[in-house]
Amino acid sequence: MSATRKTTIGKQGSGMSLPERIMLAHGGGGQLTDDLIGGCILPRLGNEILNELLDAAEVGQDGDGGRLAVTIDSHVVEPWRFPGGDIGRLAVCGTVNDLAVCGARPVGLALSLIITEGFARVDLEEILDSLSKAAGEAGVAVVTGDTKVIGHNGQAEIYITTAGVGRIPRERKLSPKRIQAGDVILINGPIGDHGLAVMLARQMPEVTSPVRSDVAALNGLIELMLRNLGDEVAFMRDPTRGGVAALTAEAAMRSGAHVVLNEEEIPVQPCVLHAAEMLGLDVLEVANEGKVVLFVRPSAAEAALALMRAHPLGQGARRIGQVTDDTDGICELRTRIGGRRVIQKPYGEQLPRIC
Amino acid sequence: MSATRKTTIGKQGSGMSLPERIMLAHGGGGQLTDDLIGGCILPRLGNEILNELLDAAEVGQDGDGGRLAVTIDSHVVEPWRFPGGDIGRLAVCGTVNDLAVCGARPVGLALSLIITEGFARVDLEEILDSLSKAAGEAGVAVVTGDTKVIGHNGQAEIYITTAGVGRIPRERKLSPKRIQAGDVILINGPIGDHGLAVMLARQMPEVTSPVRSDVAALNGLIELMLRNLGDEVAFMRDPTRGGVAALTAEAAMRSGAHVVLNEEEIPVQPCVLHAAEMLGLDVLEVANEGKVVLFVRPSAAEAALALMRAHPLGQGARRIGQVTDDTDGICELRTRIGGRRVIQKPYGEQLPRIC
Repeated sequence: MSATRKTTIGKQGSGMSLPERIMLAHGGGGQLTDDLIGGCILPRLGNEILNELLDAAEVGQDGDGGRLAVTIDSHVVEPWRFPGGDIGRLAVCGTVNDLAVCGARPVGLALSLIITEGFARVDLEEILDSLSKAAGEAGVAVVTGDTKVIGHNGQAEIYITTAGVGRIPRERKLSPKRIQAGDVILINGPIGDHGLAVMLARQMPEVTSPVRSDVAALNGLIELMLRNLGDEVAFMRDPTRGGVAALTAEAAMRSGAHVVLNEEEIPVQPCVLHAAEMLGLDVLEVANEGKVVLFVRPSAAEAALALMRAHPLGQGARRIGQVTDDTDGICELRTRIGGRRVIQKPYGEQLPRIC
Repeated sequence: MSATRKTTIGKQGSGMSLPERIMLAHGGGGQLTDDLIGGCILPRLGNEILNELLDAAEVGQDGDGGRLAVTIDSHVVEPWRFPGGDIGRLAVCGTVNDLAVCGARPVGLALSLIITEGFARVDLEEILDSLSKAAGEAGVAVVTGDTKVIGHNGQAEIYITTAGVGRIPRERKLSPKRIQAGDVILINGPIGDHGLAVMLARQMPEVTSPVRSDVAALNGLIELMLRNLGDEVAFMRDPTRGGVAALTAEAAMRSGAHVVLNEEEIPVQPCVLHAAEMLGLDVLEVANEGKVVLFVRPSAAEAALALMRAHPLGQGARRIGQVTDDTDGICELRTRIGGRRVIQKPYGEQLPRIC
């Protein structure tokens, strides 16, 4: 879940009351999602752990002083197959990444399938094969599961919910609250690939494009970083729904720090930028599924970049911003032409059903 | 997940190959569900833990020598509100019960909502209120979650996937493999209430009936039993999809024991029996959501019944059968009129979308 926006900071927060009916945009990971969570869910289910709204919740002590981490995500991506991946690969990688960015090593996955009647068996098999391959790459097993079949009112669809349990070693304490002035913001490669690959597959299936989803399990890369850099890494998160914009705006808000992104340093593949322009999308707000944004102490920045670049999933690693001395909780973009604008969490939904 | 049926025992197992398209009946918890799991899922995702197909998987050691338990279930019940409960209450109780029957004490729940566009906010709030109340009764908190919104092709619906993490104290070792000759089979009350309440609400909404779902969290009752009876309890499970028939047929198959159910001892409320007859259903195969079937050593049977009857959720507790000396892996029903028939796992789906 993403952060709620009970207090309006800067220009963030919609300040709107919830409409009478749930809209697609409530699932977009933007301000409307926050309104749904903050206005409807947390007042009923909130507690000390849930209210933290982290990618993975920490539940109690593990035996050796570490903590258990639990996460869950439903995957409803449409179409279920897209260039570079499919819903099966997404279901594994999304959950493994949610654990990994909290410093947790995955212990096991729980998998629940909701399949509409009439879904082709060969398609299900393709999805399961892909899921199995992704689990193998991430080094994690599916330990339990459930299968439900529902009637269909239109096309055959599949929804996959994955929960993950992990262990966070005692010494790891990643949190947006640890972000401080001087921290450097890094990313492991170019942005926007996943969301645009899905969007093109859905909206323009006739267009041939080199854009491919980046969906990948990042636990190997992240483990490498944390083993070598320890608490020099203050915080990290994967920029999924809402993209880098949502991530950095939220990190600024939660830490109370002033975060600066430098547009010309943010890597974007030309074909992705082209696709974004064609679809009228801001690539900063587009979802990724194989990227991680890290806030690291300045002394560790060069080592972190070198480590990432030596890993297959971090070869395009870049420094994309920094944290300044201000304490206004705002994220600012310094544009290519020298302008400055406030980065807000997207309002509604740019890319429905991209994860 | 339910057991696969790679080897056909007695008359069980459909022995059919999977059809080209997924059918509603593949989600019914019967032999077709087993075929889907055994023929499609396990060959791709199977491992030592998943292959056990327990209600909750055990993943590694906990600090004090206990084990962690993980479970997941998607809830797609239609209609989402039915006499005695709703999908929110079901989502909590189903998961808490899956942990409890494995001897686990719940640590936290992860909750993922898939909501169709247009779903009414007041309905969502009602579901969340109910979910919150059920979680309070079970003494467990929702620690993390996710929300997705999908387009709708017909009526507004909601699907709730709940994962649960629990801790199994070191000394607890419940397993169908511990079932032995002489064991007595107990249940905490009358059967069929949940499935028939849902089925009547869907098929005959105009009919007024006293049938109400029994949906309840059983962790309190189960904890009471395990604390007092220890390893005198060999195995327990909640008879959900496929009902008592699926549970006992599977327990017989997995233990290799011969299980006898005595029809006249199995408690069924008259209104439930009437509804089952009206709908042409075998109440033994109907789902329950507030019942647990226990296999206990004969020396503990009376104490177990007394303990259950002293608990609000066990007042209708009964002894319903026993395990004999035979080792054919078959479950047999001794009927009211003195007949004997083999109880098989239901084939397909009696009650679509009852959980």
